[in-house]
Amino acid sequence: MLRKMMTQNPDALIVFTPSGKRGRFPLGTPVLTAARSLGVDIDSVCGGRAICGRCQINVGEGEFAKHGITSAVDHLSAFSKVEERYDKLRGLAAGRRLSCQTQLLADVVIDVPAESQVHRQVIRKAAEVRDIEMDPATRLHFIEVEQADMHKPSSDLERVYRALAEQWEVRDLTCNLSIIAQLQGALKKGEWKITCAVNSRVAGGGKELVAIWPGFHDRIFGLAVDVGSTTVAAHLCNLTSGDVVASAGLMNPQIRFGEDLMSRVSYVMMNPGGEKEMTAAIREALNTLAAQVAAEAKVELTDILEIVLVGNPVMHHLFLGIDPTELGGAPFALATGLAISCPARELDLKLNPGAQCYVLPCIAGHVGADAAGVVLSEAPQDSDEIILAVDVGTNAEIILGSKARLLACSSPTGPAFEGAQISCGQRAAPGAIERIRIDPVTLEPRFRVIGSELWSDEPGFDAAVATTGVTGICGSGIIEVIAEMYLAGIINQDGLVDGGMAAVSPRVRANGRTFTYVVRDGEPLISITQNDVRAIQLAKAALYAGVRLLMDKLGIEHVDRIRLAGAFGSHIDVKYAMILGLIPDCALENVSSAGNAAGTGARIALLNKAARDEIEGVVRRIEKIETAVEPKFQQHFVEAMAIPHKTAPYHNLSKVVTLPPVKEISTLDDGGGERRKRRRG
Amino acid sequence: MLRKMMTQNPDALIVFTPSGKRGRFPLGTPVLTAARSLGVDIDSVCGGRAICGRCQINVGEGEFAKHGITSAVDHLSAFSKVEERYDKLRGLAAGRRLSCQTQLLADVVIDVPAESQVHRQVIRKAAEVRDIEMDPATRLHFIEVEQADMHKPSSDLERVYRALAEQWEVRDLTCNLSIIAQLQGALKKGEWKITCAVNSRVAGGGKELVAIWPGFHDRIFGLAVDVGSTTVAAHLCNLTSGDVVASAGLMNPQIRFGEDLMSRVSYVMMNPGGEKEMTAAIREALNTLAAQVAAEAKVELTDILEIVLVGNPVMHHLFLGIDPTELGGAPFALATGLAISCPARELDLKLNPGAQCYVLPCIAGHVGADAAGVVLSEAPQDSDEIILAVDVGTNAEIILGSKARLLACSSPTGPAFEGAQISCGQRAAPGAIERIRIDPVTLEPRFRVIGSELWSDEPGFDAAVATTGVTGICGSGIIEVIAEMYLAGIINQDGLVDGGMAAVSPRVRANGRTFTYVVRDGEPLISITQNDVRAIQLAKAALYAGVRLLMDKLGIEHVDRIRLAGAFGSHIDVKYAMILGLIPDCALENVSSAGNAAGTGARIALLNKAARDEIEGVVRRIEKIETAVEPKFQQHFVEAMAIPHKTAPYHNLSKVVTLPPVKEISTLDDGGGERRKRRRG
Repeated sequence: MLRKMMTQNPDALIVFTPSGKRGRFPLGTPVLTAARSLGVDIDSVCGGRAICGRCQINVGEGEFAKHGITSAVDHLSAFSKVEERYDKLRGLAAGRRLSCQTQLLADVVIDVPAESQVHRQVIRKAAEVRDIEMDPATRLHFIEVEQADMHKPSSDLERVYRALAEQWEVRDLTCNLSIIAQLQGALKKGEWKITCAVNSRVAGGGKELVAIWPGFHDRIFGLAVDVGSTTVAAHLCNLTSGDVVASAGLMNPQIRFGEDLMSRVSYVMMNPGGEKEMTAAIREALNTLAAQVAAEAKVELTDILEIVLVGNPVMHHLFLGIDPTELGGAPFALATGLAISCPARELDLKLNPGAQCYVLPCIAGHVGADAAGVVLSEAPQDSDEIILAVDVGTNAEIILGSKARLLACSSPTGPAFEGAQISCGQRAAPGAIERIRIDPVTLEPRFRVIGSELWSDEPGFDAAVATTGVTGICGSGIIEVIAEMYLAGIINQDGLVDGGMAAVSPRVRANGRTFTYVVRDGEPLISITQNDVRAIQLAKAALYAGVRLLMDKLGIEHVDRIRLAGAFGSHIDVKYAMILGLIPDCALENVSSAGNAAGTGARIALLNKAARDEIEGVVRRIEKIETAVEPKFQQHFVEAMAIPHKTAPYHNLSKVVTLPPVKEISTLDDGGGERRKRRRG
Repeated sequence: MLRKMMTQNPDALIVFTPSGKRGRFPLGTPVLTAARSLGVDIDSVCGGRAICGRCQINVGEGEFAKHGITSAVDHLSAFSKVEERYDKLRGLAAGRRLSCQTQLLADVVIDVPAESQVHRQVIRKAAEVRDIEMDPATRLHFIEVEQADMHKPSSDLERVYRALAEQWEVRDLTCNLSIIAQLQGALKKGEWKITCAVNSRVAGGGKELVAIWPGFHDRIFGLAVDVGSTTVAAHLCNLTSGDVVASAGLMNPQIRFGEDLMSRVSYVMMNPGGEKEMTAAIREALNTLAAQVAAEAKVELTDILEIVLVGNPVMHHLFLGIDPTELGGAPFALATGLAISCPARELDLKLNPGAQCYVLPCIAGHVGADAAGVVLSEAPQDSDEIILAVDVGTNAEIILGSKARLLACSSPTGPAFEGAQISCGQRAAPGAIERIRIDPVTLEPRFRVIGSELWSDEPGFDAAVATTGVTGICGSGIIEVIAEMYLAGIINQDGLVDGGMAAVSPRVRANGRTFTYVVRDGEPLISITQNDVRAIQLAKAALYAGVRLLMDKLGIEHVDRIRLAGAFGSHIDVKYAMILGLIPDCALENVSSAGNAAGTGARIALLNKAARDEIEGVVRRIEKIETAVEPKFQQHFVEAMAIPHKTAPYHNLSKVVTLPPVKEISTLDDGGGERRKRRRG
């Protein structure tokens, strides 16, 4: 057959789908070779030795006619003994061939399935966001190394480098001494065949041979980690498929040094050198977390070759071993905001000894690598629309803009949105009220708690919460209860709990010189005090003022899309966020949760090395606004104390909810809470 | 004055000597600025702030006329207050000015003294070799950093990078986390002024900010180290002047694992993991040595920013933490022969935490980084003449060639040249015989021992050696005694101790079936046995055969210049080396000691970063010959057993010494010593 074809036609046409790339090659050319010379994206670890199975192709019949080629499976060399062996050992689906073993005999169309592509897409759930293109910094290369020969003296490492250059066109490598120390043993054990992991984006921008294994090895993984003040979350990702193979979270052990960021900074100020304890604690937690996800996914720690981290500036500094004291006071200067690339071992992380760490850049003193992660996930820099991305924690990190211009700032919301500083507030945990509705006539509430799908007025509710109890209100519940109190007229636009309502319902009760709304009578008593309302007003005013400041700088009155990131952003009902005036007016369908966008950003940077260059470039271009020195921030803050807001009309909100009529209200001065003049309804 | 000059002539000519560079600049231009814009080599650490005093110039009168300029000191601005202050604090010699503070007012000639040049020459004593041009990898830069400002948020590291770029045109830096962790403290302490050490030749080829100090700092040092099997020698060099400020040597503590190289390799073979003990031992020795030279020169260990090492392949591997087992048997493959650049801390060296280590490349399995150091020192790659460089240790490392072509091999001389395997042999130490003459008529010897200038037949000799005694014969002494025995007819060309001579002198005595020559009757008895002669014959035959093999490869019969490196090469009288036939025929005035050329090579690579590129390139080009697979090596070896040599005439030797007539001798087979057929004289 081959002979016959060669006589009448010495070469043949090959068309690859889905790329459409095509070319003519001599008969007998392996399909993988043709693909490489056309720049078709087909993966391979073993370099055409029928070991890795990464280069599989579909030899379907369907596509042929479309390209004007007569269908014929025998336009390719017959299923080879080598493929049979591979099929027996590792399985090969019907219609699949190993492109390295399949030769071109006549015109054909070859389909490259997604899983055979290096640059495959990792699909993300949300419709608003782009998929992740696989382009990891670390790649595996199986090589056969020339044996040592006294007639041509050269060192083993030099022959390894030569094999990588000749077999993979990978050049200009450096490598660590520990690799050199392992080399001769690995070559011996692998009988002059080893697998090399090359990281092409190490510190300084070079390429490094970071790990070797005797023989063939094709499992490598990476960790994407979001170091939060409260929790540390890690995703273990397969660096070939991009799949998340295990995820886990852990309380940040630094909590024993202080509940929130500022108390940890204070700890260092009061205990010089105290940052070292916190650095050790967080690094140890990361090792615990890595061991946990590795065990869950049955992955060896030595198969973890990369770790990418995001975190707020204080977490960022503490993880890196930098004293965060300067972040505790003006001028809030970061020691460094630049992205960090360094060996993971320098951070005491117990992964593969050659594993590399990448930490996203920080944007500013209060806008950290977590915010950079949000940018990478939400990609406002690629958007024609104006996007507002908000990540709410102790500080709100705010990103606003589009491809034309991007701004960032941080706003000191304090921990009220996380349930702290609220009399009945608590962390999101079973037993916490997360949803609430208040009847505007009777002022009777009904609610749902975390851990149960039932509303409190549904049968079986008491049984359902018997074990957890109803223990408090979490961050998203507080937003809802205050918004519902406003909609029911219990608080006015000024945020004052209306004592006149005590006549309507006994749930409104005097509490010293102010009034309280009781959500649940019992043990514990769950109520919303005037102080609670003020705390939320202060927090939301700070958030809104930050957003508004950036809108001023950008000269806009309207944002096209709002993405709420972080745990708080994932759980609040955006409608209530708008009723309270946390966020500016926007079509409600364009306001959505971005989930753990910071963590997603870490995952993108883990799976796609170009994303690292991208975020470093974007962060440089972002205009950093320091709210502390902006006089307009104070003005916006004062104005934003009202509910939903004194000056900004919420056109989109009035379509979905009936807001109380706007009354003439007093001017709030500085957020001083109880001190200000009171009006009764 | 300034005003007047500007009216009539808005610019002026400035001529710099010794470079001859010249140009016109506006009146008032600082001389340093003019020098920089002309590319005149003037040093500066403080960047023109009159702190460092590195930019001093001579404002002499002598040079003016030569350049057609009327002499006039007032062609420069008057001695300033700033210079007065500097003079008071640190002293300024007569006629000296600080070029950063001195402005051009009219045409002048400025002399740049050698000590103000960055690229000054470090003079080496030997006439044969080039001087070292200063061009260290590490440079200091004093900077003033913009203060943190909330109106323009940026991180401290970014502002440091900006200052380095703007004030020193140093860009594209990386830096280690430990520097970032120190940064804010240093900026605070130095009031926004710090000194940065930048190494422009770190691993991967980039530039790294390796150390910082608050305020002004201008002392940095480097270590050049030769790790020998027996001794480790270190020179502490000032990285600005190039001066050696302290030197010290230490016994290699690995000796407890085995006296010579092969016994240390055997130790690892027999005790797997044993290389780790030896690695720890040598690294600890280097730390001891570093502390010792630093203390001697009153230098802080943290001011040591570089270390450059050479060593034979086994020492090289053990120091780097690589198992040397493969070097113990064919095919003698190095794990790596490439030059190593890495942070010194990765080698457990306790210098500045940012100190960088550079290890010269190895040439081949038995031709190590020490041989590369010899090449760098002797520079045959730049020579029109054919140079033979030999470094004798347990193996002889042999380099032969010129700029046209360069070859290298190693020859297994064994330790006889070091006094080992010789019945009365010992290391070079007080009490060892190092010089000897034998009366050709009476066969009476006279000798000198290390530690005394007196010959044994001079009055006072016994008193002079009373404390040390006469304990044995060192390597150079053995060469002389055997050569003198040959010249006196005690041994013949075949190396046989002539029993017939027992009739001439009682010093020739029967010793079993062979004869022995007694150098000194007494306690201990010092004599040369037939076995001793054979051991030296084997060693010298191996050395000569290696040299001869390279001469064959190069197709030459004659070398122009011979350089003998290492301790042995430094102490032997080259005439005797030639009488015995260790080295090929050469004009005696062209045979000389190269001292510790390997260590000098380390010093060159320490002081001149371009030398590192040079040696890496040269080592790649050197043709590596493995004597073990060269049949002609065996033939040369057998032929070279005779004294001086059976086939090669020593034309130059006969000019200075009367050699015995050449007799017909038996063919020596394989160097089997006593087994071969004996001839009596």
